[in-house]
This record gives sequence, structure tokens and C-alpha cells, in this order.
Amino acid sequence: MKHEFLKKLVIPAKTKIVMLIMDGLGGLPIEHGGKTELEAAHTPNLDALAERSALGLSSPAGPGIAVGSGPGHLAIFGFDPIEYEIGRGALEALGVGIDLGERDVAARGNFCKVDENGLIVDRRAGRLATPEAIKLARMLNEIRIDGAEVHIEPVKEHRFAMVIRGDGLSASVQNTDPLKDGLAPLKAQALDQASEKAAGLINDYIDKARAVLKDEELANMILLRGFDRLPEVPKYGDLFGLKAASIAVNGMYKGVSRLVGMQVLPVEGYSIEDEFTTLEKYWEQFDFFYLHIKQTDTHGEDGDFDRKVKVIELVDSQVPRLMALKPDVVLVTGDHSSPVEMRSHSWHPVPALLYGRYVREDNIPEFGERACTRGSLGIMPAKDFMPLLLANAGRLAKYGA
Amino acid sequence: MKHEFLKKLVIPAKTKIVMLIMDGLGGLPIEHGGKTELEAAHTPNLDALAERSALGLSSPAGPGIAVGSGPGHLAIFGFDPIEYEIGRGALEALGVGIDLGERDVAARGNFCKVDENGLIVDRRAGRLATPEAIKLARMLNEIRIDGAEVHIEPVKEHRFAMVIRGDGLSASVQNTDPLKDGLAPLKAQALDQASEKAAGLINDYIDKARAVLKDEELANMILLRGFDRLPEVPKYGDLFGLKAASIAVNGMYKGVSRLVGMQVLPVEGYSIEDEFTTLEKYWEQFDFFYLHIKQTDTHGEDGDFDRKVKVIELVDSQVPRLMALKPDVVLVTGDHSSPVEMRSHSWHPVPALLYGRYVREDNIPEFGERACTRGSLGIMPAKDFMPLLLANAGRLAKYGA
Repeated sequence: MKHEFLKKLVIPAKTKIVMLIMDGLGGLPIEHGGKTELEAAHTPNLDALAERSALGLSSPAGPGIAVGSGPGHLAIFGFDPIEYEIGRGALEALGVGIDLGERDVAARGNFCKVDENGLIVDRRAGRLATPEAIKLARMLNEIRIDGAEVHIEPVKEHRFAMVIRGDGLSASVQNTDPLKDGLAPLKAQALDQASEKAAGLINDYIDKARAVLKDEELANMILLRGFDRLPEVPKYGDLFGLKAASIAVNGMYKGVSRLVGMQVLPVEGYSIEDEFTTLEKYWEQFDFFYLHIKQTDTHGEDGDFDRKVKVIELVDSQVPRLMALKPDVVLVTGDHSSPVEMRSHSWHPVPALLYGRYVREDNIPEFGERACTRGSLGIMPAKDFMPLLLANAGRLAKYGA
Repeated sequence: MKHEFLKKLVIPAKTKIVMLIMDGLGGLPIEHGGKTELEAAHTPNLDALAERSALGLSSPAGPGIAVGSGPGHLAIFGFDPIEYEIGRGALEALGVGIDLGERDVAARGNFCKVDENGLIVDRRAGRLATPEAIKLARMLNEIRIDGAEVHIEPVKEHRFAMVIRGDGLSASVQNTDPLKDGLAPLKAQALDQASEKAAGLINDYIDKARAVLKDEELANMILLRGFDRLPEVPKYGDLFGLKAASIAVNGMYKGVSRLVGMQVLPVEGYSIEDEFTTLEKYWEQFDFFYLHIKQTDTHGEDGDFDRKVKVIELVDSQVPRLMALKPDVVLVTGDHSSPVEMRSHSWHPVPALLYGRYVREDNIPEFGERACTRGSLGIMPAKDFMPLLLANAGRLAKYGA
């Protein structure tokens, strides 16, 4: 649905919406005739909620498309994930918790080793140990250049994320990484006129970085690639009339929710219970809450069926805390499937449960893949859930007379 | 889903995909409360496969749209059948087994009768008997013109298909058939500059045809209409990274599968069993097999319920041969419905069964219209099956991070 169309129908209300996202929720049976992770989990609270809800399956980006967390979240937040693409540099920066904003250009970087002639000996500096990379990043973060702030955040081994913050920066800048040993690092070259300022700043920075690192033995240079900016995405306040908050522990989810205009709430602690405590604490202050559970995906990717089941059961145990707040509308789903059987993100549609006073209940007393197949929502493109949540919350006017 | 998007995600794999298409598979009960053709058929092998599969319904071109074989196949092959239109001339040529290629302009033709002044007396030459048309076609196929090869293939009675093969031919050429008796056949006129070469060649040919036929009593002239070329359709190899083969007995299906880049395999014999023998014979040489069963449609159009049922049962008896090859992914469906009750193609969604190791099984032990309605695939646009097949075959990478 077109945002311009939707936006005109949005009306104010005092209702509250909760979007509970279990990352990688959808699964597969391990053996023929068996149960999926969600079906195997003992979830009396979700099952009871399902009985009063409409069920269905959420399709992040269409049949067969397994999405990463970036597009998966953009979709469930109401945006076409193919239209709004988040580049690798920006994702890397979001992933390590950099608070990426509109003035920022992000990139992925490597520490590398060059010889006395400046030619690359090892693009990955022997897969530098992470503590060493942290030391080098600290040195680089002392660098000051005119016209922008630059920050480097180590990711793992030789990899880091970089952000250049300044006014009027565009990101059509060629990689400095020649992707091959034996060559010299390239100059950052602007691919359009608008990006010349950014390219100049990056080259200034690289010169200073070379000087700072010149006496280092393991890694004495940096290579940059994947320059990009966050896509311009409409904001929840403007688009949906929602004062929206995000409750997440991991950097990327904070980043993507901030991108769509949610306020990222501080979570005291890292546990699932701590996230629900944050929900309770800020309940009065927002219209919309996105609460993100990471561990369902982690154990899906680890291939640990029992631990994924246990995380789902733990989330289930928190559902009464959520429902005690008397939310008007609740969506429980995932941003994508991560079947233990595949140890990866997958394309399978994700079980979804929609609760609210005006939801047409399916009265199916179970929350699971096969139960959701019987539900009245059918297979819904993830990006279409937001209008449904708004409508159920009394936040959409009638179209036409 | 856009092909440019999909193409970027394609990755190589060693897996094999089979698309088993029973033409016109979908049906209707003859009487209230009765069974459809597929439901009435005794299909123990398909039912057992269904139990391990995901079920759903395939919609060739959206609600209410009954498709011909051309668009029906383009859709199930992964192309939007409204965007990629195959013209009547090209379809007629494909239908009679002409191996239509990129250098060809096709047209539909009539043998007609003109008087001594060259005015049309009968556009259909009294619905000329087919053997007579075959004789005339043989005479015409002796004609040689400079700059192109022309071939005529009788269709039925006065109708024939024509193909002009040469370099640099475009097909914006006006019909020579004035569609009315008492007028003279028109000159082939180019509607744009690019088509002037083709128009000139066609007029040369028509002049020679008039001379060749001038002493014939029943039909002494030809009328041409519906000039067109095959649409430019991306090829399976380039688009999907698949080495694809087609197993079909009838001309049109060979033509449409060749159009999308499949290699048409020779079938020794004409029976359904022969087609499965071909599948076995070439199993090691391809990644993707399209196997087409014509007779389900034929008996649907004939209005013969029992014979359509028997064909389905015969296909069912071959399913163990297919599964013995251990395909990684199997789709069983049709290109459209052809209910016996209607004696024609219809718009009804077509039962579809998707089997594969990573398919989320519905555990519904029956392959039939109502069983498929309960399946997790829902009503899928036919063109969306290809990404799903690729994903299940491990041939699509994750989108985004």
C-alpha cells in the first residue's frame, strides 16, 4: 500500500500498539511429521492469546526470499524492503551499535599490512586478533580532520565499521580496497559531484591514518569499502502519527528502529525479562512499542533446537506482563524464519498473531506454523501489517464516503 | 518480483528441480457436493507425496483470468504473463511445432479464393479440406526469395502458420487480410521503418505465391495477419543459473520452453511413460526439468470426466519413477484449470504441491483442490513459484544483512 495514501487516513487516538518480534521465529520440523520449534515449545500464554486472535503468516519479502535483519525489520515496520535498501556499510555500522544519522556516511573497513613501497602485503593483516584491532581503532579515533568527525568501531579481527559525520556528505565514493594483494590502496574517488566533499575528507583521514599506523608491525594501513548512507525512510511520527519506542538490546535493531523514527529506550540489563521491564516502565509515554527478542534467531543459527524452544517459552512466560498493561493491539511475529534445521535465515513465512478488541478471532487455540496456516490473515506481506495494526487501534479513518 | 532483483541473489548449486505440469489440471465437480477430476482420481503416490509437501493453489494471471497455454506457461515459468505477451502469429507457429527463434517473424495465414480481377471471393476458400491445404503448403514451400527463408505449416482447413526467417526483421507489418470478401488482398505495409525489410520480403513472397497458386481451383491466393516475433524473454541459464530441459510432446510447449532458454529433449514415443523415460535418460545432464502432460487438458476440453481422471491416475503411476531419481525439489501443478464441466480453460486456481527437504510440510495426505485450499502456500501467483523453487533448492542467497 502506498504511504501517501495511508498517511492521509491516519487519525489520532489514545490507543497503544505492541509489536513483539521474536527474531527468526519461524522454523521447520527436524524430521518428517515432527514439530517446529514454536510448535514444540510449551506456550500456554501465547496459545491462550492465539485463541482470542487472528492468525496468519508474515512474508518478509515474497516467496523464496530469505532476508537479513535489515530488510526483515524494514518490512515488518511497514516498508517495502526491496524499495528501501540498507547498504552493507550502514548495516555494519548499525550492527556494532553506531548511532547512524542523516549526516553520516558509513563504510566497512579492514586493517591491512603494506610494504615499504605502500603495496598491500596482506589485505586482512593476517586476520589480526580482535584485541589488537581494538588498540589500533583507539589510536585512529584520536585523529581529527577539518569538516567532519570520523569514528571507527572494531567489528571482529581485521574488520571495522567507520562513520564520517558532517554536513553535505554524499556516499557515491569508490572503494579504496583494491580487493587484491600486491597493489596499492586506492584513493577514495567521488563517483559524482555531490560526493566530492566526502571523498576529500576520506582521503585526508586516510593520510592521517597512514601516519598514525606507520610504525605498527601487524597492521599499518586501512582499506575502506561499501560507502553508503542510511536510506531516507519516512518516520513513524509523521507517517503513522505514532509516538513510537523501541526496546532492543542489540545494536542493529536499535539502529533500524531509530531509522524509522522510533525512540530507542534504554534497557537496564540484557535479559528478555529486562526488556519487558522497560516496556512496563515507559508504558505511559508512547503509543507504539517494538520489542525485539534476539535469542530465537541466535539459537536458530546455532542449530540448537532445545535452546530456541526454551527462549520461546521464556518469552511466553512474559506475555502475562505484556497483557497486564492492557494493550489495545498486539502483533506477535518474527522478522524472518531461522529454522534450526537450516542454521540460517530462511524464506519461510513467519507465524503471526494479531490481537485486539476488533480483531475477527479465529479461535484457534495454538500459536504455531501449521495453526497459523489455518488462520484468517493468510500469508500477509510483512509490510502490510502496519495499516492493519493502525486500523485495529482506531487510528485509520474510512476511505471515501 | 522483479527479475533484476532476483537475478542478483542466484547462487550455484548441484541440486535438481522438477516441474511436473499437468495441463489444465484444475477442475470442478460435475454436481453439487461431488468431487473434482483430481479429487476423484485414485492417486496414492501423489497423496503420499502431498503428505510430505506444502500445498496451495497456483493462480496463473490473477482472479477471473482464464489463460491460454502461452501465458499459462510463461507464468508458471516465472514470468508475468501480462507483461510478456506472446502474439497470435507466434503462438500459432509454436503450436504447429515451428522452431521459432530470434530471427523469425511469424504470422497466421488463410488460403483464400480470388476472382480474375484479384478480388476476394471467399476468405476461407470454402474451409478448404486439410489434405488440400497440405498439398498447397507443399507447393508454397518450394518458393525461394532473396534475403529470407519462408516456411508454411498447415494448421487445419484453410488455416496455416507462416514463418519468415532472416536478419534484421521487425514485425510491425499490417495484415494483408482485409477481413472482408469483395476486396483485394492488401499489400504488406510496414508500420515503422524497422519493419520495411520484412514487409518487402513478405510482398515478394506473396507475389510468388500468387504465381504458384494461380491455376489452383479451390484456393489461389493467401492472406496473412498477426505478424509478430517472439517476445524477448530472459533465459533460464542467465536469469536463474539453471541448465534447464523441457520434456513435452506437443509443439507449443516445446516452443514456449525453448523461448525461456530450456533445451527441448527428444521424447522417443508420445506416451506419458515415454516422457518419464526421457526424464530418466537425461537426469544427470540438467539442473531443472519441465515435464508437460497434455492429455489432462485435452479431456477437460473434450468434456470427458472419466478420461481426464484416468490420465491423472496414469501420471500418478509414474510418480515413483520421478521420486526414485531423488529430485531435491518438485513442483506438481498445472498451467491453468480446464474443468470437464466447462469444456474449456478456466480461471480457477490450480492445485499445487511443493516437495523438498526444506519445505515446511503441511502433512495433508491428499492432492486435490479442497486439500490444497488448506495448504500453507495459499493462493500463489504462478509467476512466484520459481523463486520458491530456487530457494528450496539452495539456489538463492539471503537478501541484505
